[in-house]
Amino acid sequence: MSDVDTDGGLLDVVGIGNALVDVLSHEADELVVRQGLTRGTATMVDADRADRVYAALGPAVEVSGGSAANTIAGLASFGARVAYVGRVRDDQLGSVFAHDLRAAGVRFDVTPASEGPATGRCLVIVTPDAQRTMCTYLGASAHLGPGDVDDALVARAQVTYLEGYLWDQPEAKEAIRSAARVARSAGRRVALTLSDPFCVDRHRHEFLGLVEGEVDVLFANEVEIRSLYEVDTFDAALQRVRHHCEIAALTRSEHGSVIVADDEVHVVDARPVAHVLDTTGAGDLYAAGFLHGLTRGLGLDVCGRLGAIAAAEVISHLGARPETSLAELAAPVLGGAPGRPAS
Amino acid sequence: MSDVDTDGGLLDVVGIGNALVDVLSHEADELVVRQGLTRGTATMVDADRADRVYAALGPAVEVSGGSAANTIAGLASFGARVAYVGRVRDDQLGSVFAHDLRAAGVRFDVTPASEGPATGRCLVIVTPDAQRTMCTYLGASAHLGPGDVDDALVARAQVTYLEGYLWDQPEAKEAIRSAARVARSAGRRVALTLSDPFCVDRHRHEFLGLVEGEVDVLFANEVEIRSLYEVDTFDAALQRVRHHCEIAALTRSEHGSVIVADDEVHVVDARPVAHVLDTTGAGDLYAAGFLHGLTRGLGLDVCGRLGAIAAAEVISHLGARPETSLAELAAPVLGGAPGRPAS
Repeated sequence: MSDVDTDGGLLDVVGIGNALVDVLSHEADELVVRQGLTRGTATMVDADRADRVYAALGPAVEVSGGSAANTIAGLASFGARVAYVGRVRDDQLGSVFAHDLRAAGVRFDVTPASEGPATGRCLVIVTPDAQRTMCTYLGASAHLGPGDVDDALVARAQVTYLEGYLWDQPEAKEAIRSAARVARSAGRRVALTLSDPFCVDRHRHEFLGLVEGEVDVLFANEVEIRSLYEVDTFDAALQRVRHHCEIAALTRSEHGSVIVADDEVHVVDARPVAHVLDTTGAGDLYAAGFLHGLTRGLGLDVCGRLGAIAAAEVISHLGARPETSLAELAAPVLGGAPGRPAS
Repeated sequence: MSDVDTDGGLLDVVGIGNALVDVLSHEADELVVRQGLTRGTATMVDADRADRVYAALGPAVEVSGGSAANTIAGLASFGARVAYVGRVRDDQLGSVFAHDLRAAGVRFDVTPASEGPATGRCLVIVTPDAQRTMCTYLGASAHLGPGDVDDALVARAQVTYLEGYLWDQPEAKEAIRSAARVARSAGRRVALTLSDPFCVDRHRHEFLGLVEGEVDVLFANEVEIRSLYEVDTFDAALQRVRHHCEIAALTRSEHGSVIVADDEVHVVDARPVAHVLDTTGAGDLYAAGFLHGLTRGLGLDVCGRLGAIAAAEVISHLGARPETSLAELAAPVLGGAPGRPAS
């Protein structure tokens, strides 16, 4: 809690995303099929459908989630100075979300909504193969608008990190475009994660434009990057993204990640994990490790290794936020004592 | 979910207790001291104090809890026909509590309160030695009254299971006394768990009277039973309880349990656990296994072994409810296929 930035100084990363509480449940594959969900993807649903799916789930566990929020919590665990922007309501799950972020050392100043839909929830169905299928009710998070993003906060963050899921909401899209403009005119970097293959399908044209003109660092997994360029192989997508974006970090589950930046190409191994329990948050935490390296000015290969360390930690337990200090896990790679650099 | 009793037939156990959602957090020992809490015990606090302690905790996980509710969920996992009585509010944590019980196969019919305090919470602070210290805000659960207990439900349950924590609330005490009367006049058994040494301190005189006159099966751990009789050794407490109660099941952590019933005495070993992660719910789940054996008419030694199996399962992970089917874990002891007996 001592890591919360209160001095108005430089921040490493500010994340903007859908603020969600995850409702985690272990289920058989049949349940996913019966509920009409697609394995390994995120389906956006309304409150009624969310209630129906929830009623079909077994006993569950509630933990704070949200893709960009998981990344930001991961960065805090590395010792980075971070802030988060996302909307909750003034209800119990909203308090849980805010508590968990702040307790992790994240600055979170958005005032909870006093009316409108409840705090958003993501039903995370973990099947026996540790794969997760998500069913998201955005609730209050859907109403993120330009007024929620503090320009001064964005201007003093080295990186503004955006999640693709935000493109599903017109108001949020406006907030994002405005944040990206502020960041770039302050000489900062903008990072984007494509979030989900269906999300890419819905917004391909806009995402291509963003990557072309506004995004400096792109995160995507194999399915997402192939979907973005509508190509059949990973290598074809790699050739396309290579000169399209300043830096692209492409994750391939147990096959590791590939990082490209102009002529530089790195192929980084995944960290072996004794027992993969829940893959939720793997991509979010990879991004946390990568951005931690990037904001410390480390080589792209080291950034990829830090991503692999963070992803390995989060898939070895239930839930999408680290349970072990990532600063400690990363100490052998970073060298010297864990924690933030002097600045 | 197919196990919910809807046919008005015989139930194995109905549990009555404080309906709470647990907020679990791993913390260093210093935090417990700094918050003025006593390690290994439950402290009852008001909403303000609960908020202050919560603010001092790191990121947490929310799971349904409540001592008797954990026992009932454990019984459902064995395949028993069970119901639960306890009060929540019509808020998000109340929905979580109700969902998790019903999804486990428990009948839960109490209408949530539409006004008054929020659903109760138990802050469970797990220290590095896997010990848990609890800080409980009863909220809506404190207002359990005689009107919430369905006499017909109690009359058709083989055992009515009560938690000692209920004695802290005058209204609840009335509900309990009434339920015990109904159970006994229907020829059923009444079981009581002493819950907590401080709770025993607060209500020693009443508990002694209950054990003498109304309780058929008593559950207590070593500290609680010594506190009840104000004696210094376990053996002294054992001699006292032996002819005081029809059946007493006394748990001693890794030293196993001792079961006494008139001239019958059994000393049952604890199940070895590779890695004890969180002792929350150990006593609750021991009671679940024991009562499952008892309601199936099994010997008291087998009841104790079933208790040990259930307790070992729950201390090997975070949270106080089983994550693995207890029916399957108990199959080698019960013989034959797991599941409920024909009746």
